Amino acid sequence: MSLVLDSAAQDLLFREARTANSFSDEPVTEEQVQAIYDLVKFGPTAFNQTPLRITLVRSPEARERLVKHMAPGNDAKTATAPLVAILSADNEFHEELPQLLPHFPQAKDAFFSERPVREQSALLNSALQAAYFIIGIRAAGLAAGPMTGADFGGIQKEFLDADHTPIMVINIGKPAAEGAWFDRSPRLAFDEVITTV
Amino acid sequence: MSLVLDSAAQDLLFREARTANSFSDEPVTEEQVQAIYDLVKFGPTAFNQTPLRITLVRSPEARERLVKHMAPGNDAKTATAPLVAILSADNEFHEELPQLLPHFPQAKDAFFSERPVREQSALLNSALQAAYFIIGIRAAGLAAGPMTGADFGGIQKEFLDADHTPIMVINIGKPAAEGAWFDRSPRLAFDEVITTV
Repeated sequence: MSLVLDSAAQDLLFREARTANSFSDEPVTEEQVQAIYDLVKFGPTAFNQTPLRITLVRSPEARERLVKHMAPGNDAKTATAPLVAILSADNEFHEELPQLLPHFPQAKDAFFSERPVREQSALLNSALQAAYFIIGIRAAGLAAGPMTGADFGGIQKEFLDADHTPIMVINIGKPAAEGAWFDRSPRLAFDEVITTV
Repeated sequence: MSLVLDSAAQDLLFREARTANSFSDEPVTEEQVQAIYDLVKFGPTAFNQTPLRITLVRSPEARERLVKHMAPGNDAKTATAPLVAILSADNEFHEELPQLLPHFPQAKDAFFSERPVREQSALLNSALQAAYFIIGIRAAGLAAGPMTGADFGGIQKEFLDADHTPIMVINIGKPAAEGAWFDRSPRLAFDEVITTV
């Protein structure tokens, strides 16, 4: 009983939540996406930067353009998921820092004047935000199917620009009633991950 | 009411949780860290890889060695937090893939035979796992103080090896009764982050 979070919430977000490979037909509404964002936007990042950008693929035409860049094995599920989101890192996130970090506006120039530094920071922090977003999808009672198996160069050209690096595509929806996921794969034990000095 | 997660859990994990800069004296126990890990180990990653490594800095001697690598402004809080954890990415995570992904053991050689590919994947996925760990700290009723302001080269030499890249240091504990954090900084609006195609 070392956790304060109630057991149902633990199950919803981690223990019973699973990466879904097939979904029901129930749509994912704008209200749900708004509620997810309104919750997970508070997740912490370095310097309160917000590099994550989310492209919701809602039109059949855009879906078709995306599916052709997905790896075999990911394309069919991306074609049929109720909603698909392209997550990308904005490598020019530093432009927003004076707005986002009002008590330390000089961070923009002091730390992020060089693009390679920004790219590393954008990757790390957009990944943190991607994890918060996945947790938020689960908090909405939906299943996430995050994927990195895709032609990200093709996706960038098709949907983004040179300042935005795709990091992940996520299928979102209610899981199919049967066969939505594989059996749970093993995790590393505590002692394989955590050491004490 | 678009979220299924109960409101108290939303507050605990996102809305009222804050990055703490000062802490009470109450220790963080091994049981708490074990409970956090046992929850967040289920967070999804690409190919079920587990690049995140956590070094708990518990001895005064190790704490002293760490503090000297923290940036000014981070050193004092790292010196006094009940527990400090160094998070790093294991760039040789692929060795564990046959164990972690039993239904697709060939992923190790098919996708991760080259070190630069592994380093990018380890950074992205260890950042996802770092976010799950921060959520887990909050799920234990504790506050996290994640920091990237540090000499990571120095920390790597002092505590890790050439295969492990530090990504973050996190102070952990009960927040101080007063003045534990800054006022909440602004977040980007939905429309600044999310577009629909």
